[in-house]
Amino acid sequence: MSANSNPLLQTYAQRAAKHSNPAAKLLLETIERKKSNLAISVDVTKSKDFLSIIDSAGPFTHVDILEDFDASLISKLQELSTKHDFVIFEDRKFADIGNTVALQYSSGIHKIASWSHITNAHPVPGPSIITGLSSVGLPLGRGLLLLAEMSTKGSLATGSYTEEAVRMARANRDFVIGFIAQRRMDNVGLVPGAASDGDFLVLTPGVGLDVKGDSMGQQYRTPHEVIVDSGCDVIIVGRGIYKNPDDIPAQAKRYQEAGWTAYLQRLSSKA
Amino acid sequence: MSANSNPLLQTYAQRAAKHSNPAAKLLLETIERKKSNLAISVDVTKSKDFLSIIDSAGPFTHVDILEDFDASLISKLQELSTKHDFVIFEDRKFADIGNTVALQYSSGIHKIASWSHITNAHPVPGPSIITGLSSVGLPLGRGLLLLAEMSTKGSLATGSYTEEAVRMARANRDFVIGFIAQRRMDNVGLVPGAASDGDFLVLTPGVGLDVKGDSMGQQYRTPHEVIVDSGCDVIIVGRGIYKNPDDIPAQAKRYQEAGWTAYLQRLSSKA
Repeated sequence: MSANSNPLLQTYAQRAAKHSNPAAKLLLETIERKKSNLAISVDVTKSKDFLSIIDSAGPFTHVDILEDFDASLISKLQELSTKHDFVIFEDRKFADIGNTVALQYSSGIHKIASWSHITNAHPVPGPSIITGLSSVGLPLGRGLLLLAEMSTKGSLATGSYTEEAVRMARANRDFVIGFIAQRRMDNVGLVPGAASDGDFLVLTPGVGLDVKGDSMGQQYRTPHEVIVDSGCDVIIVGRGIYKNPDDIPAQAKRYQEAGWTAYLQRLSSKA
Repeated sequence: MSANSNPLLQTYAQRAAKHSNPAAKLLLETIERKKSNLAISVDVTKSKDFLSIIDSAGPFTHVDILEDFDASLISKLQELSTKHDFVIFEDRKFADIGNTVALQYSSGIHKIASWSHITNAHPVPGPSIITGLSSVGLPLGRGLLLLAEMSTKGSLATGSYTEEAVRMARANRDFVIGFIAQRRMDNVGLVPGAASDGDFLVLTPGVGLDVKGDSMGQQYRTPHEVIVDSGCDVIIVGRGIYKNPDDIPAQAKRYQEAGWTAYLQRLSSKA
């Protein structure tokens, strides 16, 4: 891979200019414009808290845990998306057969495809999950992330599972824009001797500045470890930002600065 | 394993008597009482169709694809569950970290744990997904199935992935009552020389009498192949039963009889 095409050495803006998927382009442009590679994971069960956190900080969602979800919530989310200039990523983790995920993505109460720029899926059902989701999302200009790795203790998304996930992504570049993973996937699952190509985004959960884990198997790393050491593109932070409601703007700023500083350090140290 | 303890050679009633998890016991007793090892997968997007199919046939659900879901739907589903004497299994395929799945299971619009006797989860996040779901479901007497295999082409739930799923189930017998799989799991993932033990239920999707697959990677086998050849306990059938709305009761009866005949054949051929 030439320095010129290595995503690790390029700015988000350079990568945005080269990306053909509209959701990937939007995300990269937004990151550059806002100087923020922070995705905030808003895992709360009340719409009021959900909107208030997003208005304080900006998001990434689990709408299926909102107890009082209704269509008006999506209008409000979209207004906030414009007001605060953020991309919406519903962390749905689709994991069913093609026919079912197509219905789950397009239909139901949540109608995720109609408002979420980006969503994600587990590769475990095989390539048909991409076929099903793509049939709904591609015409709408959406993008999909595959869960190639997880941040939990004892995760089974390792070894050949991760390699297969990356191969499935390479075979579906029009719709699959990247990975949920703990490191860059550029050289994973390549046939020996083949050159890595393309620019898959890597969004990384399990990021925390203060704690190393929770009681339910989640494990945390710092923004520096994730962006500089592992070459990921976006840090996903949840409870670290909103666990104290009065402190959300300050914590969001703290993580945004840590993520951006790490990115600048990566660019300068590797140039 | 002695013949006496081999689930393959026992009746559903014998197995019900020995099971300690209340959801597993309920399912086995219901199968025996109704002479039906058929689970109907009702994957439709309108409540009216959903209730009408269930009233014609009786179910297994994907409530997240219902466009007009509301709390009254659950009351109606529960009334039908009593009227037609069936167990409710929400095929949610949870696949996230422990903290998130606990919220998805207990909260949101759907509040699955409050009405679904059985649900299922992918083992990919590691044991923490069981910890998270169990914290909600065990106090309610619910049971969990792990997706140890999938019926789709190119599924990654194979080999060591399946073995790890079975080991996770063995370590959590109070809440994990069995598997979504294509065959019995009794001897999978055992330390060499160890005896298989316990009675995990095997519920099997991808069952069809008329077709071999769909355009999105689903693959079908017959009830005989699934129950007799592979030793599974429950056949899950969806579109095969309700694709023609006028024919639902006849198709449901046809699959129920095929599943029960196969079970009787297994008992007699192996006794």
